[in-house]
Amino acid sequence: MTKSVFYHAGCPVCVSAEQDIINLIGADNVEVVHVGKTRDRIEEAEKAGVQSVPALVTPNGNVLHINFGASMADVKG
Amino acid sequence: MTKSVFYHAGCPVCVSAEQDIINLIGADNVEVVHVGKTRDRIEEAEKAGVQSVPALVTPNGNVLHINFGASMADVKG
Repeated sequence: MTKSVFYHAGCPVCVSAEQDIINLIGADNVEVVHVGKTRDRIEEAEKAGVQSVPALVTPNGNVLHINFGASMADVKG
Repeated sequence: MTKSVFYHAGCPVCVSAEQDIINLIGADNVEVVHVGKTRDRIEEAEKAGVQSVPALVTPNGNVLHINFGASMADVKG
């Protein structure tokens, strides 16, 4: 894995953080995944250690939970 | 302000996040401030909107609270 992955659920907190992250590390360096729409990637996010969104999983596998939009339980509904 | 500022307090969560942020955006693009040691910058951090550390203040002034190490109240002790 060479790109970071930014998981979000479309919430205002998520969208704001997404813009900040893209500005900071560049759109080419991050894959943006909307787990509210792309629900088959929820499991992947949870396995990576994502507990809430927005969250950034770094290329070395660390999870950075950024601010707080929604818990993964909320995303799964 | 053209650099981001990463505020932390030396906690393990902070140090881990600091390495991730430096890897992601580059050491030249972020000023690292240890508010536990550089206590005269606590007020600046609070004015920027930092509520807990580690936190990254972006060049446009947004605050990204990353994971959770300690509240600013704890830092002020």
